[in-house]
Amino acid sequence: MANVNESTVSGEVSGTGVVAGIAYAPVVWVRPRPELPEAGNPLRDDEREPEMERFLAAVETVAERLQHRADNAQDQAAEVLKATVGMVRDRGWQKTVRKNITTGQRAEYAVVGATDRFVSMFESAGGLMAERTTDLRDIRDRVIAELRGEEEPGLPDARQPSILFADDLAPADTAGLDPEKFVAIVTEVGGPTSHTAIIARQLGVPCIVAVGKELHDIPAGEKVLVDGAAGTIARNVDESEALKSVEESRRQQERIAGWQGPAQTSDGHRVQLLANVADPKAATAAAKSQAEGVGLYRTELSFLSSTSEPSVDEQAELYGRVFDAFGTSKVVVRTLDAGSDKPIAYATLASEENPALGVRGLRIALGNEGLMTRQLDAIAQAAQARPEGSQTWVMAPMVATADEAEWFAGLCRERGLVPGAMIEVPAAALMADTVMPSLDFVSIGTNDLTQYAMAADRLSPQLAYLTDPWQPAVLKLIELTCQGGQRHDVPVGVCGEAAADPLLACVLTGLGVNSLSAASNAVAGVGAQLAEVTLDQCREMAAAAVGSRSAAEAKAAARAVLGD
Amino acid sequence: MANVNESTVSGEVSGTGVVAGIAYAPVVWVRPRPELPEAGNPLRDDEREPEMERFLAAVETVAERLQHRADNAQDQAAEVLKATVGMVRDRGWQKTVRKNITTGQRAEYAVVGATDRFVSMFESAGGLMAERTTDLRDIRDRVIAELRGEEEPGLPDARQPSILFADDLAPADTAGLDPEKFVAIVTEVGGPTSHTAIIARQLGVPCIVAVGKELHDIPAGEKVLVDGAAGTIARNVDESEALKSVEESRRQQERIAGWQGPAQTSDGHRVQLLANVADPKAATAAAKSQAEGVGLYRTELSFLSSTSEPSVDEQAELYGRVFDAFGTSKVVVRTLDAGSDKPIAYATLASEENPALGVRGLRIALGNEGLMTRQLDAIAQAAQARPEGSQTWVMAPMVATADEAEWFAGLCRERGLVPGAMIEVPAAALMADTVMPSLDFVSIGTNDLTQYAMAADRLSPQLAYLTDPWQPAVLKLIELTCQGGQRHDVPVGVCGEAAADPLLACVLTGLGVNSLSAASNAVAGVGAQLAEVTLDQCREMAAAAVGSRSAAEAKAAARAVLGD
Repeated sequence: MANVNESTVSGEVSGTGVVAGIAYAPVVWVRPRPELPEAGNPLRDDEREPEMERFLAAVETVAERLQHRADNAQDQAAEVLKATVGMVRDRGWQKTVRKNITTGQRAEYAVVGATDRFVSMFESAGGLMAERTTDLRDIRDRVIAELRGEEEPGLPDARQPSILFADDLAPADTAGLDPEKFVAIVTEVGGPTSHTAIIARQLGVPCIVAVGKELHDIPAGEKVLVDGAAGTIARNVDESEALKSVEESRRQQERIAGWQGPAQTSDGHRVQLLANVADPKAATAAAKSQAEGVGLYRTELSFLSSTSEPSVDEQAELYGRVFDAFGTSKVVVRTLDAGSDKPIAYATLASEENPALGVRGLRIALGNEGLMTRQLDAIAQAAQARPEGSQTWVMAPMVATADEAEWFAGLCRERGLVPGAMIEVPAAALMADTVMPSLDFVSIGTNDLTQYAMAADRLSPQLAYLTDPWQPAVLKLIELTCQGGQRHDVPVGVCGEAAADPLLACVLTGLGVNSLSAASNAVAGVGAQLAEVTLDQCREMAAAAVGSRSAAEAKAAARAVLGD
Repeated sequence: MANVNESTVSGEVSGTGVVAGIAYAPVVWVRPRPELPEAGNPLRDDEREPEMERFLAAVETVAERLQHRADNAQDQAAEVLKATVGMVRDRGWQKTVRKNITTGQRAEYAVVGATDRFVSMFESAGGLMAERTTDLRDIRDRVIAELRGEEEPGLPDARQPSILFADDLAPADTAGLDPEKFVAIVTEVGGPTSHTAIIARQLGVPCIVAVGKELHDIPAGEKVLVDGAAGTIARNVDESEALKSVEESRRQQERIAGWQGPAQTSDGHRVQLLANVADPKAATAAAKSQAEGVGLYRTELSFLSSTSEPSVDEQAELYGRVFDAFGTSKVVVRTLDAGSDKPIAYATLASEENPALGVRGLRIALGNEGLMTRQLDAIAQAAQARPEGSQTWVMAPMVATADEAEWFAGLCRERGLVPGAMIEVPAAALMADTVMPSLDFVSIGTNDLTQYAMAADRLSPQLAYLTDPWQPAVLKLIELTCQGGQRHDVPVGVCGEAAADPLLACVLTGLGVNSLSAASNAVAGVGAQLAEVTLDQCREMAAAAVGSRSAAEAKAAARAVLGD
């Protein structure tokens, strides 16, 4: 079904652009994972002790190398790497490998068996543990490579600024990734919400994912021009032209750096730019950015980090610390969005066949209404402690019907809170006229809305061509929501990755969205872009995008309005 | 969140009506499952042999009782029961129980352990094996009850016509269920596509699911009036009024029995009624019904029943046998709708987090285009063998974009086949204007369309209040599809459970649907209902239903137009 994806221009390969920006540099490929060993003949008794030594030496080398990287990394990257060092030195895992060697297995094979065992233990534990299995496999590969005397798999040492090519990136690959050395990232698979995309966005380097097998046609060392906004990798380009594009992109970065909020179009139409936060630390960082407040405060953290439901006071204390960072500014709190995809032992159902279509978000209240009312009590308690005139808005995730919206709004109003709903279920967008009357605001969650509208898992790398917020069907649902908002005088926000895309932000503004909430480091880029367009241009871009027949055409149509 | 569901009238309990019809009779409750035993103290050595005997005797009694039921049942029910007898007598399972007893476990506890072990084996095998775990647990419960001298769990022996109440029904409960004895079925959980609903539809007995905990307020022996169309269970009703309702319902059944196709409204608007089939046997049965052809031929069977892909000739032979049953009538073939929810070893991906949102339907061609083209070759080969003037239409499942539709249409036209698409992804309904131009027809799959529009798993009993095709959001997507169909002169069909509901069939006709395809035994009920309404009434019902704020209101609004 190759012709379903975008066609490729001669000398140009394309994928899904997820972080805008232009780079021109030689390609380096992430070194491939080693082939896994076969069992082979068992070791003789006298070979087993030396094999044990060989294993311990390899483990120590790998651990030291990662420790060295951890020492040179900062913040979160350092923590990820330190956690990985901890896993390499894990006594349980080492003991299992050694036990396997005692039974006559070669060290390489013993490592595979021990890792498989821990991977399945982690997987049955589920949740956060299951997410560590990528790291475990990464350690396995590093130790096997070391045992064989091969180069360590993963990130190469780039001697000059380079463009990083990979099938996909693991967390251990990206931790400590230096944006000075790797000026762009391009991967064969992945989607706009994949790990690679999230990391690239954090680092602020241009990034293209889901290029497909063709990416492997481009060898290491070849110079290519990567355009993260267009999603293209151009080959054989004129070097001076390429450098001109890079320079123009650099000037754009400067405009972003020089941008001052609050955001408005060049003809003065205001758009509120807000930050997504999940804890007091992120709130403090966001408060220092040009975000005018918080458009999405994810409250899962306090629930995920304890084995029983936190008390109302405990919750209120945590929420208060986030509120404190924002004075009287608007903070939009989203109530607990757990479910069997983000399991919380005391709150969620046993495993479901399709957790994304299961008892999640607001639906958890079906079996445990008190969990919802106690959280609202805590939010109300924290909100009362805010200074006079503070704006505390509360929204429920996964609202699908007018009855659900009305029920939730009632609970909020009883507590003096401003009620709203996430619009992320297609039905809620389609039923905007019945969902809105009981609410004071809505916020469109584009990641989930896209997933359901396209019936495609947002985490599936194979389906990244579908899970793109530029899909005209998704834009239509956003348009329906905005039209409902206008009829019922209910402000419409967007939170989700779409709000971080400067070009898409213009389209959303043109559709009638009043506020955009994204990672706080995306605010200036969006604000600088909005400052360069008129509201009429935004509307023209919106009409062109909604009327397109594919995500690629929608993006191209929006760019065409800007004369790009 | 109780108030999100329908409110209950005093003296009346309500749920989701899934099979229409009225019944008035005393309630019988399915006998509950036994409590599972604790480990207890280990048996002394000399107690173990007698315990073994006790187990073998219990197994034999349970097996004989099921065999007796199998001998008195017919067709599929007999086969289900025979399969269950086979599982009771399974040597592997018995051996595991006996081994457990040898280690000192009591028989009841040994049965639990052995069953758990087989359940997890079956579950890791996946697919059809995993579906047998309900039967395994059923056997466990029967044997434990027998060991304890308790009544066998499951269906009671009804001495007079009764209304069957249950939490939910297992396949072993429903196999051989006699519609003369059980004149209606009501369950606490379940949805319109649950096992209970499907069985009730096959038996033609009124059925209500998803009533909730309140059902348990009604004791065995109380006479209640069940209205399967309205979804209500009325208590303390006047007996003569109740019998009048039953009589009216009986006359309605007679009208259905006396109905002659082809279907049309009372003012002569034609609606094509078609049958859903999955194999030559069902096709033969459907050909004898008043269905005018096949609206959905599911082709999974030939793929599921072999370990490697069937050859083009093998496929063509099977398709030809289905075609043969229908002469020159229309047969709509759906291409393979596999995915990790319906895994086919040689065709589908490894396990996915959310198989319903995964690489399924048309998307399998992403990694294996040949599977699709070979199936189309086989369909074309079988179609060429049909008599002159035969209509063979082919549609792809899970089409989400215009590009996918165009790609599939191209493959069909190259082979002289009439191309269409299932409309079951919300995006396809929203993008009707871009999806339709390349197609000759579309068919709305209401089950999946509802699941995605509501972001609620169609198999989740907790979410049955959402997964109802009467949801106005779903009706809006159907309306958008019909409007697109009219603009592009593309006929729109509906296949899925919605097409079997006579009242909803009127609404669909009013929305502009041209053909309805359902189980062939639903055809007469739908036809008889359409014969009693005008096209204008259908349109009025459609407008009222689409403009409602909930599924319950939509249904009530449609009924109100008919003066019910």
